[in-house]
Amino acid sequence: MTFKHKKISVIGSGFTGATAAFLLAQKELGDVVLVDIPQMEDPAKGKALDMAEAGPVIGYDAKVTGTADYTDTKDSDLVIITAGIARKPGMSRDDLVQTNQKIMKSVTAEIVKYSPDSTILVLTNPVDAMTYTVYKASGFPKERVIGQSGVLDSARFRTFIAQELNLSVRDISGFVLGGHGDDMVPLVRYSYAGGIPLETLISKERLDEIVDRTRKGGAEIVNLLGNGSAYYAPAASLVEMAEAIIKDQRRVLPAIAYLEGEYGMDGIYLGVPTILGAGGIEKIFEIDLNEEEKALLNKSAESVKAVMKILA
Amino acid sequence: MTFKHKKISVIGSGFTGATAAFLLAQKELGDVVLVDIPQMEDPAKGKALDMAEAGPVIGYDAKVTGTADYTDTKDSDLVIITAGIARKPGMSRDDLVQTNQKIMKSVTAEIVKYSPDSTILVLTNPVDAMTYTVYKASGFPKERVIGQSGVLDSARFRTFIAQELNLSVRDISGFVLGGHGDDMVPLVRYSYAGGIPLETLISKERLDEIVDRTRKGGAEIVNLLGNGSAYYAPAASLVEMAEAIIKDQRRVLPAIAYLEGEYGMDGIYLGVPTILGAGGIEKIFEIDLNEEEKALLNKSAESVKAVMKILA
Amino acid sequence: MTFKHKKISVIGSGFTGATAAFLLAQKELGDVVLVDIPQMEDPAKGKALDMAEAGPVIGYDAKVTGTADYTDTKDSDLVIITAGIARKPGMSRDDLVQTNQKIMKSVTAEIVKYSPDSTILVLTNPVDAMTYTVYKASGFPKERVIGQSGVLDSARFRTFIAQELNLSVRDISGFVLGGHGDDMVPLVRYSYAGGIPLETLISKERLDEIVDRTRKGGAEIVNLLGNGSAYYAPAASLVEMAEAIIKDQRRVLPAIAYLEGEYGMDGIYLGVPTILGAGGIEKIFEIDLNEEEKALLNKSAESVKAVMKILA
Amino acid sequence: MTFKHKKISVIGSGFTGATAAFLLAQKELGDVVLVDIPQMEDPAKGKALDMAEAGPVIGYDAKVTGTADYTDTKDSDLVIITAGIARKPGMSRDDLVQTNQKIMKSVTAEIVKYSPDSTILVLTNPVDAMTYTVYKASGFPKERVIGQSGVLDSARFRTFIAQELNLSVRDISGFVLGGHGDDMVPLVRYSYAGGIPLETLISKERLDEIVDRTRKGGAEIVNLLGNGSAYYAPAASLVEMAEAIIKDQRRVLPAIAYLEGEYGMDGIYLGVPTILGAGGIEKIFEIDLNEEEKALLNKSAESVKAVMKILA
Repeated sequence: MTFKHKKISVIGSGFTGATAAFLLAQKELGDVVLVDIPQMEDPAKGKALDMAEAGPVIGYDAKVTGTADYTDTKDSDLVIITAGIARKPGMSRDDLVQTNQKIMKSVTAEIVKYSPDSTILVLTNPVDAMTYTVYKASGFPKERVIGQSGVLDSARFRTFIAQELNLSVRDISGFVLGGHGDDMVPLVRYSYAGGIPLETLISKERLDEIVDRTRKGGAEIVNLLGNGSAYYAPAASLVEMAEAIIKDQRRVLPAIAYLEGEYGMDGIYLGVPTILGAGGIEKIFEIDLNEEEKALLNKSAESVKAVMKILA
Repeated sequence: MTFKHKKISVIGSGFTGATAAFLLAQKELGDVVLVDIPQMEDPAKGKALDMAEAGPVIGYDAKVTGTADYTDTKDSDLVIITAGIARKPGMSRDDLVQTNQKIMKSVTAEIVKYSPDSTILVLTNPVDAMTYTVYKASGFPKERVIGQSGVLDSARFRTFIAQELNLSVRDISGFVLGGHGDDMVPLVRYSYAGGIPLETLISKERLDEIVDRTRKGGAEIVNLLGNGSAYYAPAASLVEMAEAIIKDQRRVLPAIAYLEGEYGMDGIYLGVPTILGAGGIEKIFEIDLNEEEKALLNKSAESVKAVMKILA
Repeated sequence: MTFKHKKISVIGSGFTGATAAFLLAQKELGDVVLVDIPQMEDPAKGKALDMAEAGPVIGYDAKVTGTADYTDTKDSDLVIITAGIARKPGMSRDDLVQTNQKIMKSVTAEIVKYSPDSTILVLTNPVDAMTYTVYKASGFPKERVIGQSGVLDSARFRTFIAQELNLSVRDISGFVLGGHGDDMVPLVRYSYAGGIPLETLISKERLDEIVDRTRKGGAEIVNLLGNGSAYYAPAASLVEMAEAIIKDQRRVLPAIAYLEGEYGMDGIYLGVPTILGAGGIEKIFEIDLNEEEKALLNKSAESVKAVMKILA
Repeated sequence: MTFKHKKISVIGSGFTGATAAFLLAQKELGDVVLVDIPQMEDPAKGKALDMAEAGPVIGYDAKVTGTADYTDTKDSDLVIITAGIARKPGMSRDDLVQTNQKIMKSVTAEIVKYSPDSTILVLTNPVDAMTYTVYKASGFPKERVIGQSGVLDSARFRTFIAQELNLSVRDISGFVLGGHGDDMVPLVRYSYAGGIPLETLISKERLDEIVDRTRKGGAEIVNLLGNGSAYYAPAASLVEMAEAIIKDQRRVLPAIAYLEGEYGMDGIYLGVPTILGAGGIEKIFEIDLNEEEKALLNKSAESVKAVMKILA
């Protein structure tokens, strides 16, 4: 038996990247390489060492290492991109998009060089356009370049619903399509508590408020933190997708996928329900949408296209 | 059945406090209240909400809340103190001790007021003296005021040994007495790989190097991070102790305990092997020490006493 | 802190009872007492000891004990009844019902005597009538006498759907009402894969076959085993319900509950969607049923009533 | 990424084999094939299906299948042999040995045919001689043919010690060499509670009693069950070894290994401390023994040789 541990590289050792690495270590999904730019190499090493030192207590063998050298990522099975800048006061959206696009291109070149057979998960915002950038820059098949937004958006939705009904989150399911945040298309009629449609349990007005809070869920955390954005739930969302791929679980999860005709769209990345397994996105489900939902999805797609126009 | 969830308050919502809250949530050990000063209330709320939103994905029902109001901590079963300042360049040790002492007194007054039957776990440095401060300020029985250092120190030791021997951390046990960090008394002859004494597996020189690295384990992380100190392994260590107490596990763990005659010492808090259960420190083990080990333990006690002299 | 471990008694140390005890131990939900009749006391003790001896390897502290003496069950928080005989060739249904009724009455008297504040979970067949028997014999409030069937039935349904679609069971939800087995009322239109209605993913014909296989799921295992009935999935189902109650999870789970007007029925125990928490059945959901579903539910209720008529 | 799930075949679908399969499924270590003779094929299928149906409730995707056809075991990474008969009243030891030897040879031929690169774990008694039989019949390198006894024996020892001291089993380590059961060589001086030597915590007399009870631990369960032998702890022990190999954990575990000079012995299988990883037994530790321990180990080896003489 020629044995090879799975290898997962996490690009960006900020809060989200580090928390994702910590959760990957806890699940022992594989050897984790936490990568950052040379100026941040020591902090990446420090966080990796700190996580390794938590292993004997929590009960995992963490092969977590920090590095600024992409040769350490060689032959990764999965690469998670959390690198990129956040929008700062006074920065135009175009600046943000173009700066992060540059980062995506640079990171992708390294991934292609060292891990040509990997699958890539993208978190960097604006995530639809950034996933598209990585797809184009990598030349990878579309199945292996995937963006995260729906797992997080629906996690927030499920949390608020569970609080509203005072129920375990285990029994709340939520369904979200389209872009991240404001452009999210929550499909309330596909959302349930223990299989019971939410619309029969919560008033329309209250559901609208919860949907609205979900849409602004990222901003709610940003406003509270004052200095930074959410990282626990985003990292957990990335790791759920990573586990589905690494362990070939064939999960039904929302993912930002490249559409070629699905939902009447072509050539853009957008959040849709998929099957995630060893092959990356193994299937895109096309579910029935009513007119209102279609309109929302189209609006969401327009937003994505508007951002794509900024791409260099 | 009159049912009451366990309640755990974590004082200090910095990296260590927040990571401890996250691990407590993952283990569903109880309702978690993350407490900070009024200026930090919103970030505490933000981190708590972010953790709650990770619950549907990771699979836990987290009742995590952030607050600056100690009435929210009412009737806690366990309180974990991570609050306090770190030593900054130019700050004298006396300044550090006295500032943190003031914080301990203030925090303890609130704990006594709202959770008079709780058990208190202290992480704040210098931890031996701070645990003593909390003990005195609380008027709690000594069994219910406990400091953390040995779980973390031995976790680091075990990590380095596992790396040295390329073995699972699961099978490495390490034994550490005395104060935290430089004053640590590592008992190599009570440390094993799968029950096999380490001294028969690793050369004396190499073991000395590993002990030395363990002693400086906190500084190693500080130097790498550049701006802050370790939090993953410290938080995991707190949570292991918390779990032993909350679930009445009767674990054999090193803890900073109040000595009244044990090891020939009286009236100081020092790291010793204990049984941790629902009653807090349910027993202190007095193990055989050779002359060298006794000397190291005495030196460690002298360091603690020197810090205690600074206490107001 | 006056600490008390939760205590769970499992009546009947056969395959299902023993497997339930093993799963309870693995989850460390509380101290487990495995109870059987005097002739089976030694085997109960043997299984309990064997489980305890697995603890150091699996990593749990199992307080599992075997006994034939109900004083050992004193002050149980939860009692799970798996005791009873199975129908043997040549045995009439009436004989089965009356024999198990006698066993329920005898067991219930002991539970009432030693654990008057406990919640009772019933698995013994015919489970609707046996739950009713325990309810009447105990004098407990209806919330605290609960039968199991829907968790198991829907687990089988979910398994077959997951196999059909080659998807993770994690993302398949299934909804089952009414009696156990043949009288089961599967609500396919309330069943989903990742939130997507199954009816849009699987043909009507194939779904009908899967529903039919689910109805006969118990018999399928009986026929394969040749000598005995299923125990892994039944035990897991009991333990999921037990966990919801012991940890006050407020899960949305199907349970056999006492109806007083819900679904137009009165004075019978029948499988309905509920909230399970520390208070037992904390709520019964009345969901919309179409005419066909109502007819099936009524038929199911008639079957239960027919068995209740046999009760002495 | 060409993805292949790990595959584990369990030969023998009796209590131990089935319980091992159930634990493997819970840990999602790979696809599990439960194999038995044609007359037991249906029960094997029934147990496998029952386990699969527990998956949605417990939360695993179990690919467990039952079969009597070894083509279904093709390309297993690991094969666990639990098949064989137990000694019945009136049966001579020679009969037992020769019958099980025949079963081992037959099973091994199939393993070699369908899974030539697998690692084999043997549980069948008398386990030292049966492991030897499989080794010889397979022609596999010694590293890949391994017997189980020490994990189970030390699990029992740890359980009794934990009960004696009222401590968590997590902190009790025990060390056992030599043959299984009566020939076990417990190394009390290599056994600890939280790293503290047991000899300083428990009187010599009481330790002797506990060692004696451990030696007879299998018989204790047999006597209680009345009809059969232990299976929870044996299955858990097999699965701990399996996990070490499948996940390449490099655990330090006692295993029955082929000795070629170690401990002064040659050409026999005997229980010794090893490193278990992807390569099977990756190392044998030779630890210091005192004269008494050496004598016990030699006696244990003589017992094994006596059984080996019976082998055809």
